[in-house]
Amino acid sequence: MKILLIGASGTVGSAIEQELGQRHDIVRAGRSHSDAQVDINDPASIRALYRKLGKVDAVICAAGKVVFKALPEMTPEDFELGLRDKLMGQVNLVMLGQEALTEGGSFTLTSGILSEAPIVSGASAALVNGAIDAFVRGAAIELPRGLRINAVSPTVLVEALPAYGPFFRGFKPATGADVALAYARSVEGRQTGQTYRVGY
Amino acid sequence: MKILLIGASGTVGSAIEQELGQRHDIVRAGRSHSDAQVDINDPASIRALYRKLGKVDAVICAAGKVVFKALPEMTPEDFELGLRDKLMGQVNLVMLGQEALTEGGSFTLTSGILSEAPIVSGASAALVNGAIDAFVRGAAIELPRGLRINAVSPTVLVEALPAYGPFFRGFKPATGADVALAYARSVEGRQTGQTYRVGY
Repeated sequence: MKILLIGASGTVGSAIEQELGQRHDIVRAGRSHSDAQVDINDPASIRALYRKLGKVDAVICAAGKVVFKALPEMTPEDFELGLRDKLMGQVNLVMLGQEALTEGGSFTLTSGILSEAPIVSGASAALVNGAIDAFVRGAAIELPRGLRINAVSPTVLVEALPAYGPFFRGFKPATGADVALAYARSVEGRQTGQTYRVGY
Repeated sequence: MKILLIGASGTVGSAIEQELGQRHDIVRAGRSHSDAQVDINDPASIRALYRKLGKVDAVICAAGKVVFKALPEMTPEDFELGLRDKLMGQVNLVMLGQEALTEGGSFTLTSGILSEAPIVSGASAALVNGAIDAFVRGAAIELPRGLRINAVSPTVLVEALPAYGPFFRGFKPATGADVALAYARSVEGRQTGQTYRVGY
């Protein structure tokens, strides 16, 4: 398969490449230092990416930012960043990428545990993750040509503990390798409309 | 209790007023024809509403628009309407209304069944509803002064069948009166971070 991997240089993206790169052709995409540049905030940038690549068999998004901040300090702009980037960035990859996918091809988006297991400073992440999981269920029944769509919803990664550990006290972290398996299950399996939870 | 009810003239709002108006002081708010005018799309309008009312014991939102349209026809503007209105309109009622609530007071937002039971043309509704339920879980653990927050997630209402029936074939509708009970449970109970599902 030819797999477009957005966010390839991130913690999750690197683990996905290690897992799926063993047996598939991975096109790495991201803001910089990748095979193809894309800013998922910008629909024009997404359109240009798909135009450049031609047909692909799977699209994986492991990119998307949200603001972590105590609720009373959250501003409208803080919420807006998550809506623009992790939420609508991923939704637009689906809305604009259907033509680029071969029949039966798949989208795999990334949500996260915080929609179900809240933490202090995680309200925006919760909101965005819940939106992605629900969008995936909704879009799955309407995609044409047997296209599929799933989400992977991981807990905090072992590799991300230096940065995110203080937010996730008491959470058992998952390894990037374990999280990557869920992406393989989405891409190489046949299910659609699923959220694959890892490390809950 | 003094209860601010936004969307009071809608199908759900009217049923809520009938249930809670029997034993509480209801302040009806909405775009027009209400005790107080508010446009939840506009943070300045929300601020003005809270300033005008002074302290309240509960805020209920039964307002919020999303676009119902087949997925391939959905435009960025269609998604945007749901993000602005039903999603961030309700989030901003919470972000801007904490000062207005008395100790232990509650916010009750409205989501809906489509985040879990998808229908054709419901992808934006699914996304928004999933976001609201997750935001409620996230915000619940961070609100100050014992403030509470819940969502009510109803199926289609009997009273809404003339307009929405064709979208919801095979769904057993709930009466407005049954849906209103869930709002009473949120306002008059003591739970927080809950989604009260009605008619699933």
